[in-house]
Amino acid sequence: MRTAPRSPADSITPIARYLQTLHARYLPCQEGAVADYIPELTKADPHWFGICLATRDGHLYEIGDTRQAFTIQSISKALVYGLALEDCGEAHVRSRIGVEPSGDAFNAISLQAGSGRPFNPMINAGAIATTGQVLARGGKSRIARVLAYLSGCAGRPLEIDQDVYRSESSTGHRNRAIGWMLRNFNIIDEEPTDILETYFQQCAIQVTCRDLAVMGATLANQGINPITRQQAIAPDNVAHILSLMTSCGMYDYSGEWLYQVGLPAKSGVGGGILATLPGQLGIGVFSPPLDAQGNSTRGIQVCADLSKDLALHLFHNGTAPPPALRLSYDNTQVGSRQRRPPLQREVLQREGVRIRMLELQGELVFSTVEPILRAIELQSGTCAYFILNLRNVITADAVSLQLIADLQSVLTERGIGLLLCHVGKLATRLLHCGLKTETLFANDDFALEECENRLLAHVMGAHWQERPALSLAQCELLEGLADADIAWLDQRLRAAHYGAGEAIVRTGGAGDALYLLVAGSVEVQQARSGNQAGNRLEVLTAGMSFGEMAIIDRAPRSADVIALEPVVCRVMDLALFNRLDQERPDLKISLLHGITRRLSSNLRRANRETRAYRGSP
Amino acid sequence: MRTAPRSPADSITPIARYLQTLHARYLPCQEGAVADYIPELTKADPHWFGICLATRDGHLYEIGDTRQAFTIQSISKALVYGLALEDCGEAHVRSRIGVEPSGDAFNAISLQAGSGRPFNPMINAGAIATTGQVLARGGKSRIARVLAYLSGCAGRPLEIDQDVYRSESSTGHRNRAIGWMLRNFNIIDEEPTDILETYFQQCAIQVTCRDLAVMGATLANQGINPITRQQAIAPDNVAHILSLMTSCGMYDYSGEWLYQVGLPAKSGVGGGILATLPGQLGIGVFSPPLDAQGNSTRGIQVCADLSKDLALHLFHNGTAPPPALRLSYDNTQVGSRQRRPPLQREVLQREGVRIRMLELQGELVFSTVEPILRAIELQSGTCAYFILNLRNVITADAVSLQLIADLQSVLTERGIGLLLCHVGKLATRLLHCGLKTETLFANDDFALEECENRLLAHVMGAHWQERPALSLAQCELLEGLADADIAWLDQRLRAAHYGAGEAIVRTGGAGDALYLLVAGSVEVQQARSGNQAGNRLEVLTAGMSFGEMAIIDRAPRSADVIALEPVVCRVMDLALFNRLDQERPDLKISLLHGITRRLSSNLRRANRETRAYRGSP
Repeated sequence: MRTAPRSPADSITPIARYLQTLHARYLPCQEGAVADYIPELTKADPHWFGICLATRDGHLYEIGDTRQAFTIQSISKALVYGLALEDCGEAHVRSRIGVEPSGDAFNAISLQAGSGRPFNPMINAGAIATTGQVLARGGKSRIARVLAYLSGCAGRPLEIDQDVYRSESSTGHRNRAIGWMLRNFNIIDEEPTDILETYFQQCAIQVTCRDLAVMGATLANQGINPITRQQAIAPDNVAHILSLMTSCGMYDYSGEWLYQVGLPAKSGVGGGILATLPGQLGIGVFSPPLDAQGNSTRGIQVCADLSKDLALHLFHNGTAPPPALRLSYDNTQVGSRQRRPPLQREVLQREGVRIRMLELQGELVFSTVEPILRAIELQSGTCAYFILNLRNVITADAVSLQLIADLQSVLTERGIGLLLCHVGKLATRLLHCGLKTETLFANDDFALEECENRLLAHVMGAHWQERPALSLAQCELLEGLADADIAWLDQRLRAAHYGAGEAIVRTGGAGDALYLLVAGSVEVQQARSGNQAGNRLEVLTAGMSFGEMAIIDRAPRSADVIALEPVVCRVMDLALFNRLDQERPDLKISLLHGITRRLSSNLRRANRETRAYRGSP
Repeated sequence: MRTAPRSPADSITPIARYLQTLHARYLPCQEGAVADYIPELTKADPHWFGICLATRDGHLYEIGDTRQAFTIQSISKALVYGLALEDCGEAHVRSRIGVEPSGDAFNAISLQAGSGRPFNPMINAGAIATTGQVLARGGKSRIARVLAYLSGCAGRPLEIDQDVYRSESSTGHRNRAIGWMLRNFNIIDEEPTDILETYFQQCAIQVTCRDLAVMGATLANQGINPITRQQAIAPDNVAHILSLMTSCGMYDYSGEWLYQVGLPAKSGVGGGILATLPGQLGIGVFSPPLDAQGNSTRGIQVCADLSKDLALHLFHNGTAPPPALRLSYDNTQVGSRQRRPPLQREVLQREGVRIRMLELQGELVFSTVEPILRAIELQSGTCAYFILNLRNVITADAVSLQLIADLQSVLTERGIGLLLCHVGKLATRLLHCGLKTETLFANDDFALEECENRLLAHVMGAHWQERPALSLAQCELLEGLADADIAWLDQRLRAAHYGAGEAIVRTGGAGDALYLLVAGSVEVQQARSGNQAGNRLEVLTAGMSFGEMAIIDRAPRSADVIALEPVVCRVMDLALFNRLDQERPDLKISLLHGITRRLSSNLRRANRETRAYRGSP
């Protein structure tokens, strides 16, 4: 890609600089002649020259006369075809108009032998027939609806150049002949007069280079106008329009264009060219002088360079969809926030490899999901549960979701679980494909916990979950203390009872106590706003403890701790914690040992998680 | 997508099941007639019917007669065009053969007025002219080279069906006429005899449905055969071949095909159809009965269903490249492994937001890199350093790398740093684009450290890095101890000296000492194998400590600690550490407080990193 010599510029977009050089490169070009088949068009200034790129998110790069109005002419043919499809349906429109390129000139009266169908909507015969499939509706005339439709694609209200319209109409004899031929073959069902006047006005609609780029971006964006965010073109019709632009959008230069430029495009004798790189961007070029085929001379050259310099050719542009598999790890690397008592912990450390999380990303289509199916097939021998994490999935087509649903039923037959998490907006569609409700989860944490629970029940049996109230001696923090020491503490630690939902510790509160959980379970939360994804930091059960860090560094509490059920804690208040230094230093030392043990294991877990999320070994 | 009723199947691929139903759907079809313009072809069994999908990584899905040999016929035209381009160059080939679709029959003697150029390489005239551009080379005849080229595309040695060849040759009078017309117009420079015999043999090459799918996948895979991993077709020619398949690959059905099926494809009268979804997969269908246009009847129906059921239409297939921006965070969220002394830590906590890491992913092309440029433009007011992390980048075209290089020079003009890390295989190309060597890093850790160092030097001045030897009192672990206690320890902690590169602690060693670093710096490493990316866990400098965790939980050392320069440590051996419990419990307690403080801050850092890598708030 060639770029301009650096200037001490304030702009940091090399793209703007590139467009400047491109514009300068062809500004001197003298080739071609302004269209003169109607007087009005001869008034165009051959020096007008604009280039505009519109990204799929509506950002515009403009250079030159991008706001100069000119008439859309044949470019309208491609878009109005979409409106005809909306009004009469594809079957009907296809029965009246073909989609094969024709070797004949754009204004030839060439109709397919027998049927009398125009070869395609891009030659005048086909375009007039297409306009004939647009219906006057809801008190709106044909032209009113065409105008509204094209305005939707441009993202601003468009108007008709009345002078050009009159000029087209007063000289449109050949098109009138075509109109009557179409009537003769019943391609249109009424006298052609209104259809022809609509067609003449349609061709005389005023657009700018910027409008063409936005229209192109709208086609690139599944019909959604990137500026207004409105669905300007029905998504199903976008592919039809792009197909026609590809096969016959550039008159008898279409084959050359596809070979050399490789972008679906449509040109008009007004000097405009609209080009689209599907899924990526729209291009508008405007320069009135035309070549022998009736395409803008500068337009052809600019698009050829853009395609080459920016690698935009449909078949050169190396955007194969990247693998849908973003990351993969098992339960021993990343577990749920549910902290497990020692026995369960051992089981999960041993068997956790049988729970595997696959993080997906990007756009799910057949060819990106297909390798996921194979990856799961490969591992289905050793894994009991697979979790598909959709958090980084951008879009998913119907096929990919159906494949996942089919995969789930096949795995179920084999007694293997397939869960999905971070399903978000896709939930409804996933259910519609037949995925079981109980297998869809709001976030990975809940899905992981579900798999852990199932695995624990499977390995440890029905009573795996029983959690009787514990004695102080069974608290992990006090592990290894002598009975006498336990007894000593037992007399001094106050017992505190909390009801389900009650807050035991509040973020920002003073770190003035250390809690030993002897009955029930608590959730450590980042904020108070209920149980959203990511909000749940830890779930602790009897035998565990909390509040260690704050009581040592005396920092305010960094999270809420909420009782999930009736809870009993034994509490060591700051006063006692400090008094131990003198009264029972030996006890204080073992306590601190316990605390460091807990911190160390948390630290090791956090490091394991970091490595897993980073995707490093 | 329709799928088969579940059977208690062993296969877990819904795709295989779908292909079964598709095959069953069209097996009964009776339409079409086997080609009979040469006697040999009439011997084909009209019931032969195979479907094969080949993925871009060479996985095959097959159903039916996918290993039945038949002659490639016109499908060879598309591929041989690639060989002609390799032999004579595009300019020369284009000067002899056009790329415009022609309305005429495939075997018409239709040449462009004046030039005598065949309209395109897919009609016989153009195909014969194309074969004429293949050169006998290195002792290999034309047909030997054609055979080798097509074998490379199929990934196995192909052979010629001699009976069909003789049959073609003995009845090829019209083609001979075409050959002499081409000679007459100097489209070929020699008498046509050898070219024609080559052409007849080329059409008689035996392939299977599987071969067609692999050839299609090769075209989908930028010319690299997914099975053999060989570059079978020069990458630059792939787009040319695909363009021609799109504009005129299916005879006079090409427009309909693009509109309805939307896959670059080529058919042959042998009953084969080769179709490609660029960047994704290849399709081969085989069924001898042909329709009026000379395309396999079942083949057309199967491809139409595949395109619809699997959403493969070129313009329907929703694979817009996903955003190249995978993740973004600043230095306060993720820092380098270089642990900073208190003063530097404060600076980085305050100013670290000015260092921003952008993790990129997928395939870098114009439209995926363009938003990155805008994102950086937006943040360039507040950031001093940007790091582009290429670890998850799959491919990058020349344009995207040049844009990044141009961005760097523009940012440099503004005094903003742009660094790249995990450049891996892209390094050479990046340097070629003009990126500065000193801005390319092997991994994110080193790039982060570089930015931190520059920022610290900027904020703290020239001497920011000075690290004089420290006294015990200045060790973070002993913070807050009374002078008397420091003095007490000073008498008892042994001093240990290590040379640069010397190992202080070895993985697996006994946790029998706690080290206070008073001079020099050390690196904590995961393994001994030098300083690879990800291997460096921490770099510690004077005032910091290591070995705390092991001395408490008595676990073996979990990493190596290597001196980066001459190092002095004060060492507390296990014996003393334990003796403190009785001799100086107060001291032991403060020591344990120090250790928990260090563990807590490490834990907080690890949690920050986990959140950042996870992309959660």
